[in-house]
Amino acid sequence: MGAGMARNLVRAGHRVVGYNRTRDKAEALAGDGLRVAGSIRDVCRDAQAVITMLADDAALEQVVSGDGGIAANLSEGATHISCSTIGTAMARRLSAEHADRGQHFLSAPVFGRPEAAESRKLLVVAGGAADLVERFRPLFDAIGRQTFVAGAEPWQANALKLCGNFMIATMIEAFGEAFAHLRKSNVDPHVFLDAMVALFGSPVYANYGGMIADRRFEPAGFALPLGLKDVRLVLAAAEERAVPMPMASLLRDRLLTAIALGQEHLDWSSVARVSEQNAGL
Amino acid sequence: MGAGMARNLVRAGHRVVGYNRTRDKAEALAGDGLRVAGSIRDVCRDAQAVITMLADDAALEQVVSGDGGIAANLSEGATHISCSTIGTAMARRLSAEHADRGQHFLSAPVFGRPEAAESRKLLVVAGGAADLVERFRPLFDAIGRQTFVAGAEPWQANALKLCGNFMIATMIEAFGEAFAHLRKSNVDPHVFLDAMVALFGSPVYANYGGMIADRRFEPAGFALPLGLKDVRLVLAAAEERAVPMPMASLLRDRLLTAIALGQEHLDWSSVARVSEQNAGL
Amino acid sequence: MGAGMARNLVRAGHRVVGYNRTRDKAEALAGDGLRVAGSIRDVCRDAQAVITMLADDAALEQVVSGDGGIAANLSEGATHISCSTIGTAMARRLSAEHADRGQHFLSAPVFGRPEAAESRKLLVVAGGAADLVERFRPLFDAIGRQTFVAGAEPWQANALKLCGNFMIATMIEAFGEAFAHLRKSNVDPHVFLDAMVALFGSPVYANYGGMIADRRFEPAGFALPLGLKDVRLVLAAAEERAVPMPMASLLRDRLLTAIALGQEHLDWSSVARVSEQNAGL
Amino acid sequence: MGAGMARNLVRAGHRVVGYNRTRDKAEALAGDGLRVAGSIRDVCRDAQAVITMLADDAALEQVVSGDGGIAANLSEGATHISCSTIGTAMARRLSAEHADRGQHFLSAPVFGRPEAAESRKLLVVAGGAADLVERFRPLFDAIGRQTFVAGAEPWQANALKLCGNFMIATMIEAFGEAFAHLRKSNVDPHVFLDAMVALFGSPVYANYGGMIADRRFEPAGFALPLGLKDVRLVLAAAEERAVPMPMASLLRDRLLTAIALGQEHLDWSSVARVSEQNAGL
Repeated sequence: MGAGMARNLVRAGHRVVGYNRTRDKAEALAGDGLRVAGSIRDVCRDAQAVITMLADDAALEQVVSGDGGIAANLSEGATHISCSTIGTAMARRLSAEHADRGQHFLSAPVFGRPEAAESRKLLVVAGGAADLVERFRPLFDAIGRQTFVAGAEPWQANALKLCGNFMIATMIEAFGEAFAHLRKSNVDPHVFLDAMVALFGSPVYANYGGMIADRRFEPAGFALPLGLKDVRLVLAAAEERAVPMPMASLLRDRLLTAIALGQEHLDWSSVARVSEQNAGL
Repeated sequence: MGAGMARNLVRAGHRVVGYNRTRDKAEALAGDGLRVAGSIRDVCRDAQAVITMLADDAALEQVVSGDGGIAANLSEGATHISCSTIGTAMARRLSAEHADRGQHFLSAPVFGRPEAAESRKLLVVAGGAADLVERFRPLFDAIGRQTFVAGAEPWQANALKLCGNFMIATMIEAFGEAFAHLRKSNVDPHVFLDAMVALFGSPVYANYGGMIADRRFEPAGFALPLGLKDVRLVLAAAEERAVPMPMASLLRDRLLTAIALGQEHLDWSSVARVSEQNAGL
Repeated sequence: MGAGMARNLVRAGHRVVGYNRTRDKAEALAGDGLRVAGSIRDVCRDAQAVITMLADDAALEQVVSGDGGIAANLSEGATHISCSTIGTAMARRLSAEHADRGQHFLSAPVFGRPEAAESRKLLVVAGGAADLVERFRPLFDAIGRQTFVAGAEPWQANALKLCGNFMIATMIEAFGEAFAHLRKSNVDPHVFLDAMVALFGSPVYANYGGMIADRRFEPAGFALPLGLKDVRLVLAAAEERAVPMPMASLLRDRLLTAIALGQEHLDWSSVARVSEQNAGL
Repeated sequence: MGAGMARNLVRAGHRVVGYNRTRDKAEALAGDGLRVAGSIRDVCRDAQAVITMLADDAALEQVVSGDGGIAANLSEGATHISCSTIGTAMARRLSAEHADRGQHFLSAPVFGRPEAAESRKLLVVAGGAADLVERFRPLFDAIGRQTFVAGAEPWQANALKLCGNFMIATMIEAFGEAFAHLRKSNVDPHVFLDAMVALFGSPVYANYGGMIADRRFEPAGFALPLGLKDVRLVLAAAEERAVPMPMASLLRDRLLTAIALGQEHLDWSSVARVSEQNAGL
């Protein structure tokens, strides 16, 4: 993800310094007009903003905290822009930590796969103080096709992003149950898929519906454990506000069943296999 | 629904005889080039095919059975084409009854609201013997923009149609839960709506998401009790094949809760109110 | 069930005429002091009350309706006492049919297995007009250890009985999930069983918990499809009153999964296998 | 809880030193033959074993960690016996921390309310090295009526205890749904209660069923947020082993709904109100 975003920032004329915990990945960017840094400290030096894009709360925690981390090395008045899909509690913790150090914090998680990052088609969800969001809007415009402002608190952007992933997950599970039903009714999965693509007119339905119709779960575009993590995070965010989300609870059980059945390495759409198995298919 | 379909059949050059149990509704069609019949018997006389479009199993049963019904009056070799969203058991019963009388039966439920019927934008799902489906394809082409063939058994079309409505219902419930979560997080519902429309690129998401964002549940485009009926039917169809559909079970409980809370007269998207209420909103 | 009940009625000094659709089963009772009838007509002749105990709605329907059925042959003023676990809709239908014929109807479903019927340990749940319930209380006292009066409408007894079976079913499913969890935690199932028996102090927990701890699902004391039927009936009864019962919905899905996995011939406690399978055991 | 346990240890002839973070509570014990300590450090000095009984993970963490905590002050070779209902992850963390310091750790959560603690009727679930469990069995015998050994790992005792609380919670929720159904069917709640007490023969059913039949949720014997905490912990423990527990997920949603509806101060059996509200009662 980060590579495509970085290249688009360079293309838009920004001065970009890249860093990856795996040095080779960062080096691969060197030819694209950005400078590769050897450490987080090096990235932070003189930066107005540091953009992070990591797999989960723990990975982000690791690059933010400690003597060599972002918090300790970012200048006063500079901004940390977190694009990762993290939890709302983590976002609040980072808001507080950066504020304590006189730094700023924005949450700007994105919708889109690596291909979308590469082709500047991400959807950016920004959360944070309005003036700060406006100041960095050119960066969001450089990496995505549209920016949505969730609110004045960074964690609100994460809540919105998690709800969006939840919407995708419910669609996947619904497809799984419907396909299982129709397979046992001897209806060709592709007829149903075509009807749903015509009905919803959505490329997301075409994409995930096609994977399930074809039982094509490898390679994993978005690994099942990451899907489970996001459902866990949306449940945790909702619990903070005392909001029950029964469909999210159901999704959690189904994804966990998929893990129990050995599907960690598959795409999260493979949760459809649970529907098949429980139907005796 | 029936009016728009009838007009499009006339426009396509077919000879159409119209009938409605409420005489006034049928008379309204008289100016559109079709003959209005005074009874089902009258409709059936000399007809190659009789198309039915009714609210539910019971209403269809009423026009099919008895001395004055379709079964008793349709000619041998003629075909009953059922466009209603009925259950799979009902479709099998009609298949058997018409076969016993030397008549044919096709199920051809449609996706789309009355406006879509009017503008020939329905999606038709056809189920029945392949040659019969082909023989009547010109009729399907006259009323819809695309026809999907579910299988050689009429009930298969109903299974597919019910699964399609289930897909819409899960989207509605997911929206309801996400909006409740985000309202309690002080995120503007329209920001989430815009993000979801951009993410899924689907007019169905724009339509239902907009209704829920605006809490605009009247007038009811599709009344909540009809939604509950369809979920009940998809559960029954799935049970015939021994397929559990936990999301459909959840939908049933939520729609039933909405009924208990007095929402019979509202659109089925008002099930979102259950999420709001259970979140203390 | 019926045999034990009949013997206890005889023991209490009542004049009993027995009938079973399978003649041999009835003949087996002949030695116990009751007369075996050759037909329902024969049973009904001069009877003040006819007691029925059958597997389900359909079986009861069969002995009640038609020229040779109870409704057509019971005397005016006589009473049909239904002890079967039937649905509330069926109970209302029978109430109406018997009333139309000047006959009375009581619902008196019972809790307890055949052993309990034999040893006069059934729990009787009576529903119907208060004076009628009182008139036949000696019969209930003859077959059970305690009688509970659910209300003046026969169907209320069925609602209560179905809720009781629902309570047992939730206990079974809860045990299934807990045992799956603890097996994967390498905790000896019998330690958990012993703790639960000590905690709840209930022979029902000892009985079902023991079956699940030992995976002893054959012979089926209460076959899984009957359990599914009862859950379906409690859901239908609740839907009549617009009451969502999410745990019953979950039970329905789990029992249906068990059917899909081939467990029709096993005891309903074998639904615990679904928990095991979904945990990858 | 702790007070009753301490008194029973004294009665059994053990030398007991008491401590409570709220000094007054500890002083109240002074007359019962135990010495009251002014600090955790004071409790730990020369102790063979320190028994902790606290509300949750966080409270336990607070008395264990830090310079003045149990870990820092317990002698090498001495044992920390945790009787709190904590999570399995927390139990593993404590096992590791004490092992690092050459100390021992046992988990021994108990079933029972303060009255049971007072009257020596607790059920003790012990987890830890077999010789250690045997060494301290006299203590368990002093505080409870029966001890169950869950396994050689302390966290196994917590898994078992959490599953036990889950069993109680499912009974409560099932009661809530059944009572809502029967109230709308005009069946007297006490008739159902009596039938269930006769059916299950369990004082736990009598106790919780009675509270729900009478809508008697204050004072809170076990506050609803503690119930939610325990369900969250059983879900977390199950997730560690990749075991889906759909009933626990449902319980979580229901308890969270109760929180959203303002029931934090009520007994956890008040989750039955959610069933009533969703039924329109």
